This record gives sequence, C-alpha cells and structure tokens, in this order.
Amino acid sequence: MERTDSDGAPPALGVGMIGYAFMGAAHSQGWRTAARVFDLPLRPVLAAVAGRDAAAVRAAAHRHGWAAAETDWRALVARDDVQLVDICTPGDSHAEIAIAALEAGKHVLCEKPLANSVAEAEAMAAAAERAREHGLLAMVGFNYRRVPAVAYARRLIAEGRLGAVRHVRVTYLQDWLVDPDFPLTWRLEREHAGSGALGDLGAHIVDLAQFLAGEPLVGVSAQLETFVRERPLLAGASAGLSASGGSDRGPVTVDDAAVFTGRLASGALAVFEASRMAPGRKNALRLEINGERGSIAFDLERLNELMFHDHAEPAVTAGFRRILVTEADHPYLEAWWPPGHALGYEHTFAHQARDLVVAVASGTQPEPSFADGLQVQRVLAAVEESAGKNAVYTPVPVPAPVPARAQV
Amino acid sequence: MERTDSDGAPPALGVGMIGYAFMGAAHSQGWRTAARVFDLPLRPVLAAVAGRDAAAVRAAAHRHGWAAAETDWRALVARDDVQLVDICTPGDSHAEIAIAALEAGKHVLCEKPLANSVAEAEAMAAAAERAREHGLLAMVGFNYRRVPAVAYARRLIAEGRLGAVRHVRVTYLQDWLVDPDFPLTWRLEREHAGSGALGDLGAHIVDLAQFLAGEPLVGVSAQLETFVRERPLLAGASAGLSASGGSDRGPVTVDDAAVFTGRLASGALAVFEASRMAPGRKNALRLEINGERGSIAFDLERLNELMFHDHAEPAVTAGFRRILVTEADHPYLEAWWPPGHALGYEHTFAHQARDLVVAVASGTQPEPSFADGLQVQRVLAAVEESAGKNAVYTPVPVPAPVPARAQV
Amino acid sequence: MERTDSDGAPPALGVGMIGYAFMGAAHSQGWRTAARVFDLPLRPVLAAVAGRDAAAVRAAAHRHGWAAAETDWRALVARDDVQLVDICTPGDSHAEIAIAALEAGKHVLCEKPLANSVAEAEAMAAAAERAREHGLLAMVGFNYRRVPAVAYARRLIAEGRLGAVRHVRVTYLQDWLVDPDFPLTWRLEREHAGSGALGDLGAHIVDLAQFLAGEPLVGVSAQLETFVRERPLLAGASAGLSASGGSDRGPVTVDDAAVFTGRLASGALAVFEASRMAPGRKNALRLEINGERGSIAFDLERLNELMFHDHAEPAVTAGFRRILVTEADHPYLEAWWPPGHALGYEHTFAHQARDLVVAVASGTQPEPSFADGLQVQRVLAAVEESAGKNAVYTPVPVPAPVPARAQV
Amino acid sequence: MERTDSDGAPPALGVGMIGYAFMGAAHSQGWRTAARVFDLPLRPVLAAVAGRDAAAVRAAAHRHGWAAAETDWRALVARDDVQLVDICTPGDSHAEIAIAALEAGKHVLCEKPLANSVAEAEAMAAAAERAREHGLLAMVGFNYRRVPAVAYARRLIAEGRLGAVRHVRVTYLQDWLVDPDFPLTWRLEREHAGSGALGDLGAHIVDLAQFLAGEPLVGVSAQLETFVRERPLLAGASAGLSASGGSDRGPVTVDDAAVFTGRLASGALAVFEASRMAPGRKNALRLEINGERGSIAFDLERLNELMFHDHAEPAVTAGFRRILVTEADHPYLEAWWPPGHALGYEHTFAHQARDLVVAVASGTQPEPSFADGLQVQRVLAAVEESAGKNAVYTPVPVPAPVPARAQV
Repeated sequence: MERTDSDGAPPALGVGMIGYAFMGAAHSQGWRTAARVFDLPLRPVLAAVAGRDAAAVRAAAHRHGWAAAETDWRALVARDDVQLVDICTPGDSHAEIAIAALEAGKHVLCEKPLANSVAEAEAMAAAAERAREHGLLAMVGFNYRRVPAVAYARRLIAEGRLGAVRHVRVTYLQDWLVDPDFPLTWRLEREHAGSGALGDLGAHIVDLAQFLAGEPLVGVSAQLETFVRERPLLAGASAGLSASGGSDRGPVTVDDAAVFTGRLASGALAVFEASRMAPGRKNALRLEINGERGSIAFDLERLNELMFHDHAEPAVTAGFRRILVTEADHPYLEAWWPPGHALGYEHTFAHQARDLVVAVASGTQPEPSFADGLQVQRVLAAVEESAGKNAVYTPVPVPAPVPARAQV
Repeated sequence: MERTDSDGAPPALGVGMIGYAFMGAAHSQGWRTAARVFDLPLRPVLAAVAGRDAAAVRAAAHRHGWAAAETDWRALVARDDVQLVDICTPGDSHAEIAIAALEAGKHVLCEKPLANSVAEAEAMAAAAERAREHGLLAMVGFNYRRVPAVAYARRLIAEGRLGAVRHVRVTYLQDWLVDPDFPLTWRLEREHAGSGALGDLGAHIVDLAQFLAGEPLVGVSAQLETFVRERPLLAGASAGLSASGGSDRGPVTVDDAAVFTGRLASGALAVFEASRMAPGRKNALRLEINGERGSIAFDLERLNELMFHDHAEPAVTAGFRRILVTEADHPYLEAWWPPGHALGYEHTFAHQARDLVVAVASGTQPEPSFADGLQVQRVLAAVEESAGKNAVYTPVPVPAPVPARAQV
Repeated sequence: MERTDSDGAPPALGVGMIGYAFMGAAHSQGWRTAARVFDLPLRPVLAAVAGRDAAAVRAAAHRHGWAAAETDWRALVARDDVQLVDICTPGDSHAEIAIAALEAGKHVLCEKPLANSVAEAEAMAAAAERAREHGLLAMVGFNYRRVPAVAYARRLIAEGRLGAVRHVRVTYLQDWLVDPDFPLTWRLEREHAGSGALGDLGAHIVDLAQFLAGEPLVGVSAQLETFVRERPLLAGASAGLSASGGSDRGPVTVDDAAVFTGRLASGALAVFEASRMAPGRKNALRLEINGERGSIAFDLERLNELMFHDHAEPAVTAGFRRILVTEADHPYLEAWWPPGHALGYEHTFAHQARDLVVAVASGTQPEPSFADGLQVQRVLAAVEESAGKNAVYTPVPVPAPVPARAQV
Repeated sequence: MERTDSDGAPPALGVGMIGYAFMGAAHSQGWRTAARVFDLPLRPVLAAVAGRDAAAVRAAAHRHGWAAAETDWRALVARDDVQLVDICTPGDSHAEIAIAALEAGKHVLCEKPLANSVAEAEAMAAAAERAREHGLLAMVGFNYRRVPAVAYARRLIAEGRLGAVRHVRVTYLQDWLVDPDFPLTWRLEREHAGSGALGDLGAHIVDLAQFLAGEPLVGVSAQLETFVRERPLLAGASAGLSASGGSDRGPVTVDDAAVFTGRLASGALAVFEASRMAPGRKNALRLEINGERGSIAFDLERLNELMFHDHAEPAVTAGFRRILVTEADHPYLEAWWPPGHALGYEHTFAHQARDLVVAVASGTQPEPSFADGLQVQRVLAAVEESAGKNAVYTPVPVPAPVPARAQV
C-alpha cells in the first residue's frame, strides 16, 4: 500500500479495540470501511485488538484486519500506537476499561449500554468530563442514530416539520429467546449484562426516543417479565446471538421483556416495548412519532425507508410517503451509491467511525456523549425501579439545563 | 315484494333503532344487508327508528329504509312490531334505554362502549341477566370482532396455533382532533361521552385484546392526556366525525389520548395506545399478538389481511404470511364474493346482525354479552383510576369464574 | 315503508336485471344500496329479475330483493315497470339482449366485456347510438372505474399532476385455475365466454389503461397461452368462481393467460398481463402509470389506497405516498364513512348505479359508453390477432376523433 | 499486519482492476471485504488498479485500497502480481480487455453486460472456452444473483417448491433520466454503452429470469422507446449516475425504455420492462415467478425480503410470506450478522468475490459464465431485432444442449 500512500494522506489515528465477538466484528467493519468511503481528516489505523484467549484474539485480529493482538486490555490501552480505545466487551467491564483508557489519555468509544448501573455510568460520565479538559473525547455506541433514515428523521423534526412532538412509540422485538432450550449465555445473566431486553434493546429505543424528540424522558411507568425462568447451562462458546446448551439448567436473572410508558420533558407521551419473545420478529425496531404538524415512522427491518406524513398537505393528496433515504442529500449518503441502492446494518458502524473521527480531528464533543449514555442509564434504572413498585410513575433525574443537541 | 315473499320465507324479527347518526347509518346498512347475503333463520324487518327531531328522524327513516319514525324512544320500545331494540345513541343514555327495553321484553343490541360508568354497566349487565331468564338476549356492539380477519385470528388462537399468549399490543390512532379548531362536539364532553379516546377507541382495543387472547385483563397502569384543552363551541350540527365551530371556546373535558400497559389473567403483557392526535393515521387500529408458537398481526386500514407467523416453520422458509381473509372457509366469507374481493368497514355490521339474529333464533347468548361490555368498562375505569394515581398498577375486578368463550 | 315514502321522494326508475349469479348478486347490492347512501334524482326500484330456471330465479328474486321473477328475458324487457335493463348474463347473449332492450325503449347497463366479438360490439354501439336519439342511454359495466382510488387517480392525471403519460403497466392475476381439476365452466368455453383471462381480466385492464391515461390504445403485440388444455366436465351447478367436476374431461377453448405490450395514442408504452394461473394472487389487479411529472400505483387487493409520487417534490422528501382514499373530498366518499373506514369490492356497483341514475335523470351520456366498450373489444381482437401472427404489432382501429372524456 | 499474518494464512490471489468509477468502487468494497467475512481458500490481494488519468487513478487506488496504480490496462494485465483481472470499464472495451487478459493467463471477472454486441460476446465466450483448457476461469458480474434473497429464490425453485414455472415477470425501473436536462453521459451513447435501459437494466433482468427459472429464453417480442431524444452535452466529469450538462445539446442514441414479452424453453411466459423514466422508482427491480405449486416475489428496494407463497398450504392459512433472508441457513448468511440485521447493495460484490475465489481455488467454472453472458447478449440482440421489425416474435439462438445449472 506504501506506493500510493505518501501523497497527502491524512495523519493516522490508531484504534485499539477490546472484545471481538458480534460487536467487535461490526466495529471492525466500520473502522476498515470509513476511510474508504468518506473523506476523513484522520486515517483510522486498526492498531490492535485485545481479548483473553490468545489463540482466539490472534485469529480475530487476522480475520478482522487488526495489526496486533493483546491478551490484556491494559496492555492495549498502554500502547503508543493506540490513540482511541473502542470497547466492545459486555457491560460489566465498560466502566473500568473506559475510565482507565480516558485516564491513560485515550479517546474512547464505548458500546451501549454505557454501563450496567447508574453509579458506573456516573463515574464514566465524570471521567469523560475530566478527560474533556485534556482534549479527550468519549462517545457511546448507539449506532442506530447513524441509520440514514433515523438521522434524516431527526433532521426533519429539528427543522420543525412535525411541530411539537406529542406521541413517541417505539417497539423493539426479537425472537431468539422463544425457544426455551436456548442456553444461558452471558446476555441472560444479570451480573454480566445488567439487564435483559431492557438494557440490550430498551437502551436503543430510549436513546432513539430522546434523540429524535430532542428532549429527555422525565418519568416512566414500567412492567418487566421473564417468561422462561430457567434455561440450559451453556455448552461451549456462543457466537453472535446463537449458542447451544447442555442438560443442566440454571436461572435466568434478567428480563425477557420490558413494557413502559413515559413522559418527555415537553409532556409528550411515550410508549416503549422491548422483547426477545416475539416469534417472527427478528430485529424489529419500529418507531413512530406524531407531532402537531406531521408524523414519521421507521422500521429497522426496512432501514432504507422513512415514512413521513406532512399534515400541511391537503387531505386529498396527503398520506405517509415512503422516502427511500438513499439520495445524495440524505445524511451520510453523499459517499455511498446512487439513489435506491440499499445500505445495511453494518453501515451504521462506518458512519459512527466517521462521525467520531471528525469529532476527534476537530476537538468537538461527539454525540451521543457519555452524559447522553448516563441519561439512558437513568431511564433504565427508573424503569426497573417502577417495575419494582407496581409500575408507579417514577421520575428520571434530568440534568439541568437540558443539553442542546446538534442537528445532523 | 309480496309476489316472491310467500314461499318459505323465515319469520320476521322486528327491529327498532334509536339514534340515526354515524352509527345509525352503519347499523341500518347491516340490518338491510344481512338477510340479502346470509341464510338467516329470522328475517330482520326495519320496523322503526327513533330520534328527537321529527323532521330529521323522518328523513333518516326514509333514507335508511325504516318503515316508521318515532320521536320518543319510549314509544319505539313500546311498539308491538319491535322485538329487538338497537341502541345507537351517545353513551350517557345507554343504560336507561337498554334496561327499559329489556324490561319491556325486547332483545337489545347496544353500541359500545356499553355505558359511561361501571355503575351503569353493572346495572345493564344485571338487567341482561334477569332478562335472560325470560328468553331475552342482550349484546354489545363491538363490531370489530366481526371483521373476518379478526374472527379468523381468534380462531387460530383458540386452536392453539400461537400457543400461550405472551404479548398483546394494540394501537388505535386517528387524527381528527389534530386541528385545534375542530369544535367541541358531544364526543369531547365528559357528560355525554364518558371519556374521549379512551372510551371511543380504547374500548374497542380492550375488547379485542380480551376477545383474541381469550382471557380478561387483570390490571393496568395508565396515563391520559388532553393536548388541546379548549376548542370552539359547536356551530350547527355535526355529521359523522366532522363538524364546524364558532368563535367562542369551551373546555375539552375528555382525554385526547390514553396509553396503558396491562396484564392478562395468564400473566401475558399487554400494551395499549389510543389517540385522536396522530397525524396521518385515520382509523389505524393495529394489533399484534405473540404467543409461544406464533404471532398474528392486523391493521384495520387493511382489514382484509391477516398476518400470521407460524414459529413451527423451519427458519429458512418462515415469515409473516399475508392471508387475504376472503376465502370461503374464512369466517363470514361463505356468503360473500370470490377470493380476493375486498370487504369493507360496514360489513362488520351485517355480520353483527347475522350473529345476533342467529342467537335470537336459537336462544343462545350472543357475544359480546353485556357482561363482556361490563368487563371492558371495568378496565376503562381502572385505566382512569390508575391515571389519577401516578400510573400505579391498578387491578381490574374480574368475575369468577372467567367465562368460557365460544370459538368462531 | 309507505308511511315515510310520500314526502318528496324522487320518481321511481324501474330496473330489470337479467342473470343472477355472481354479477347479479353484486349488481343487486348496488341497486339496493345506492339510494340509501347517495342523494339520487331518481329512486331505483328493483322491479324484476329474469333467469331460465323458474325456481332458481324465484329464489334469487327473494334473496336479492327483486319484486318479481321472469323466466324469459324478453318478458322482462317488455315489462312496463322496467325502464332500465341490467344485463348480467355471459357475453354470448349481451348483443341480442342489449339491442332488444334499447329497441324496446329501455336504458341499458351491460356487464363487461361488452360482447364476445367486435361485430357484436359494433352492432351494440350502433344500437346505442340510435337509441340515444330517443333519449335512451347505454353503459357498460367496467365497475373498477368506480373504485374511489381509481377515480381519484384519473382526476390527478386529468389535472396534469403526472404530466404526459409515458408508461402504463397493468397486471391482473388470479389463481382459481391453478388446480388442474377445476372443471370446465362456461368461463372456459369460447362459445360462451368469447375468451378466457383476456376477456374476463384483460378487458378490465385495457379499459382502466385507456380510462386513466385518457387516450386509446392504438396497437398491441401479444402472446396467449392455455397451460391446462383439458379439464373435467362440469358436474352440477357452479357458483361465483367455484365449481366441481366429474371424471370425464373436455378441451379448454380459451386462454389461461394473456401478455401484451401496446402503444397509446400519445406514444406511451403499455404492458399488460392477465392470468388465472398465478398461485397466491387472488384478485391482484395492480397498475402503475409513470408520467413526466409523477407516478401513481394501485392494487385492487388494497383498494382503499392510492400510491402517488409527485416528482416536483425535492428529492430528499419525495416518495410514493399512500393516500387512503377515504376523505370526504375523494370521489364517491362524500356519502360514506369517516376517513380511514374501508370500502370494499361491492361498493363499485353502488357507485355505478349512482352514476347511471344521475345520467338517466339528466339525459347525459354515462361513461363508459358502448362506444368505449367497443373500443376495448377492438383491443382484445387485436390482441388475439397479434397472438395468431407471431406477436407482430397489430394496430387497433381508433374512431376519429377520439372522444373527449369527462373528468370525475 | 505482518505480526498476525504468518499463521496459516491462505495463499494470495492478486487482483487487478480496470476502471474505478461506480462499479470500481463497488468491486473494491467486495474484494476488500470478502476475506474479512468468509473463510476463503485464497486471500484476495488488491494488487493494482488501472485508469487513463494518472492523478485520478492514483487517488482511486489510495481511496479504495489498491497497492499500485497503472495508466495502461495492458500494463496491469502484464503484472506478475495480478492473477485475476476485474473489468469495470464501459461495455465497448470489455471484449478487447477480457480476451487479452485471458490470453495473458489471467482469470477474468467482467462487469455486465458482457459486451456491446453478440459478435464481441461470442469472441469472449470462445476465448473463455480456450482459456478454460489452461485452467483459467471467466465470470460475468451479474451481481444480483448474489443477493441472498435471489439466491434463496433460486434454491426454492431448484428444489421444486414452485413446480414448473409458468410466469416470469420482471420490471426494473429507475428515474434518473426523467429530468430532460440530465446530460449526455457515456451511458446515453450507443458507441460506448451499446444500448440504454436495455443493456444496463434489461441485461440484469434477463439474466435473473434465466437464472431463477433455470432455463433460457427462446424468443422475444419487443418495443423500445427514447422519450427524450436530445440532451445537454456533458460539462465536466460524471460520477456514479449523476452528472451536469452544458447549453449545447446532442442526440440520445440509446433507448430510455424497453418492454418485451418472451418465452422460456419450457413454454413459460415472461414479461420484461426496463426504464429510466419512472418517477419515484429509484432502483426498482421487481420480479415475480409463478409456478404450478407456488410463487415467489422480490423487490430490490427491499432486498433482504423474499415473498413466497406455497400453494400446497390450505387456502385458509395460505398467503405470501415475507421471509427475512437473514437466517444463518440462507445463502451467504452464515458469515454475516444475526437474523434481521439487513444487508445492502454492496454485499453482492463481496459475495461475487467469494464465489469467484472459491471457483478459482477449486478450478471449477463459476457462474454466470461468459457463455451465460453471451446468452443474455443474444436475448438483448433479439429484443433489438424484434423492436425493429414491428415487435414480431424473434427467436433467440440457444446453445444445445442447455447447460445444466448448479444450484446455490
């Protein structure tokens, strides 16, 4: 590659990634692709990946294009060729790693949810605030903000095309736990995952609701349920969301499903549902927002499409229009294919990498910040608190003042 | 008509209808059509219609095919040629009329919601129970149970095709109140309508949830909202859902929107949302039910279609299938058009008339009974109670034992 | 009914219907309903129905609400209480009946296709032209023009919202002949039906293409196919599109499928496909029209929806919008239910009855005229001619000048 | 990368690409990604890219990850580190380059359409056949075969799930030429592009029809049209499908739209339409195949979904099911994300690269072969011939015997 690399290439930004399973593969794809598609001010270099199993991490490095492999995340954080640490581990290790990385002078990208508890998230947000003073940036990986249709929905709302928001409804349904013999992976253990559908799926939809509406949730009323309370203990390794189990069984310690209603700061009503027990729904994140002047609707299983209803249209010609969010003027699309050529799930990680690289180069705070991630964590905690108290409406502490949100 | 009427025509069943606005027109269409399409054991005769304005009721009788017009509902109830009283008035008069009609020895069909309060509904259910001993039948007009796709969904669930129900989600969205200058019709006044979106739309979706799942709701956690709190006072008459207002304004005393979560007797989670403030959603009753073995989904704006996912299918060929519920073996379809020929909204009223006539002829209790209507009313009351107490989970009194439900 | 009938009721228009199977049932529903829903200048009276089997026609009269039954269509045409003859028989009898009725001084509604041959259709159109001088009106029953979404599409095109039309594509797929044991009903016999999918389904889509584009087809290139060439002889009566067969088999003498391309007078390209051999497609008439400035799309299985793309929109917000054609300002909708309440297949027959009654009352030519029906017949004949000559482009004789078409 | 590369890495396969515009970018993405996702027997190395403009090709090499840049395609073909030549130039240069590369001992991947004429395609197919004897493989880039839903549709058909095919309909609509001021790029010049919508879009749909049905087209009847016959001459460079024009105008020498019907070898009827003049249709390749026992439908704008109707299902539960083709057992999906996580357009190029690498490693002929590409070219030529002869049915020469097709 050296023969073409000299002429005016931008400076390198060394990335080190910790964890290399499903999220690690997706992040790798993002880091590899971003500079091939976008004009970036810094050139991400896949410097090293860390994981505990030496052979496995070495294979992962080879597969995903990381130049080196480490078996100790502290060693990765300490590397001179790493300026940005990308955390793709389960939630129970996020706080320790992120704080250590920031204190070691690295920028940080941390997978969602930010942490497994509000206390951890607060510590992380505080660490991010301190690091900010030293020019270090921290971002949480709510990648669905980077679906072009979602980013464009935010733009429409920010431009006032919906008027004041009145209703937000978001449902995130999967079905990989319908089979009662699906085994007890770490995602079903409270000590590792923090919570179940709530933290995994609910975190996404809470973040999207707040991001799209441009205002925080101020209270929730919730119910949680674990439909299958015992599952086979894990036999061997899991991959992605698939795994196989043995004959012994153990208790599921997280929720299978979470349903909650809420209020946004403006008084808008929000309804949320997250479940891993919805047969036929594979990755069905569906959202709709109704405002005074229009509505938008989105379905992650058709992620190139945004439905938009403009209530200012005469009734005879009005209707939800299906916008194929593949035009050059749509967010992120200037760099991709001609109109109508579909993007997929993994593109969100390339967009995330782009936005973070741009922020690092310019020294501006990327979104969602750790403070945003903390706010989501507070909502999740309020959900659990409400579910433990007969669904009573439970306020979510909101930082004052509400941070202004940049438009895409 | 006499020249063709003699040969073996079934006995007449005289029907008297009270109220002749939107619901009156729809019920009339149902009564006129049922015997033209279905083989009925009794022949409905549109004997008389009642309303307060003499000229208007006379015109309505002429328009909709009622043989006589009355200006006093008591006179209609007293007519010898009326064996069945069909109540299409606002909710505040349901109890008085229905109880009087039953006591006068008439069968009764009462529009939903059954009443504006639990107390009224209890009195009506008690009256229906007493009348039952005299061979009189009472039914409440939750017409959406008679959409063929809904009736077929119930059949699939009753047959066990979904297994145990885990999730019910139903949303009923309209947008006719988005315009802040839409005037204060009776539907926005608590004294006449009882409640707003909750009683009008919420009653439907609560009934459908209980009907489809085959079990009652046992508790709810709710929030209500009135987004536009003052509206122009009504100028002139309203028609259907349209009306125009003057320059003075008065307070809206019902909810614009209701959101609530709930539990069914089996422990299944339910989520409901009813709103008249969702731009672009005209009559968008959307429901999905997830069970252990499959899922169904339905959208009233595409009422000839039922989406069904059979989780027993191999994953490679599985998917929500779009069943056009227009086959001869689908509920009610034996009498209509060839496959693929769409039915519409008003057909539900013909189906309702059919089912009621069959029940009257055979002396069996039609569904939904006044007891079913009372149960819905109890849920609505629990919703209002919960909304008044910080959304705390509020039990719904459930009659013991849970009544067995007939299959379609 | 007499007690309410006197006050200002409009004059009666006696209707006599010949044939009482599928189409007869649908037309009956239209005649019964039109005056209940629309404000009509004349009151249709279902005077008499005719059919060859005395018991069956008597039963049909009773079922569908006709005051009298006749076993000879000539007797029906001769009745003094019949001013309009509605022909619902197979195509081979259309010409004889229609011409006789017009010559007997009756208005005529004739089911589509107008005839089984161009010669018959020419004779009918000539008879209609002669009768027109005596104030008699003739109309052909292309009911799909009366689907509100189709009528509204025509309005959009006539208003120039699509600009000049460039592409028309219409597909009409059914699957009731996929089963090779479906028997040989009259619809599969050339002598009765004239042709197969071509005349039954193709006639509809040719008419719609010409109606929507507002211009005639001037040439076609076609292929026809009969996939199942022998079928069981019919055992017993058929009903609707269903029937059962015996063990002997006979030749199918009509096409199962027709595919053809064509040119409209303006040079626009048209593509047509009609088949009864498309598994899973029940009544799938799908059309799309692309113009210089926009596009519309429609699917009869979702007949309340019209998709409309306005190419003048900025690309970022443009997209096919789903118009629910249920607003009061949409064609025919002033008389029906509130927005979002679906209409069905049979409503087209009520709309057809309305439009014809209005035309009769005002003495204006209703559309589609027999001349329009003849034009469709010429296209079908050109299709058969082209298919017999290696698909060579075959001109369709077009009357000069092209008749101006009224806007809906 | 050296630190992780040693352990058991597969041998390298040097790739040289000629052309670096839209297709070049897409192919680059495919070559870069394939080995990161799939387990490949050879490791593709992006050795060099060629183009005429030295600065531009150097920038492209840098952007897309090619190790070296050449300004003469012959130099690229001659490079020792190139074992496979990937041709992404306009169609008029395909034959010369492909034949030279094969004769130079390189494997070849050639973008579709294979050539601009049958004669060129025949020479290419002959060259491929000769080269095959020396162990060299040639493949044409009909990438849409590698959409997982399309590959899975082929599998269903090959397994007999549809029975004998009766109908194929494929439409490919775009709208980037609707604007009459879109300039005259090379794609609108016959000398460079060979034809217009026909060769660009029509080639894809002809290939898909033959691939999915598993049999060749044996004749066609066609019409072509150029709606906008003059366009502004190009001002400056074009990118992707976008470009800008100056004030002078020149003649468009290719078709804007092609419509044709055809016959497959089995007698099945096929209908095709390709247009760049369909407002609102961006990349709308829609296909449906009806067989004796079922149907499939696909829409490239929703490329993760396959609609499948199994006619063996009882009618009451039958319907087109929406299969999300994202399960591990679906073609290519073993390597990607969990179920429901969407793939996009560019993934087809990674799949193409995978299949070609696997074929090279095993020495088996990849599909589609140059013979397959020639067959498509013959269909396109027959289309043009038919369009020039009044659409008369024009046979397509078919090689005997019809080559057996591998199943996916």
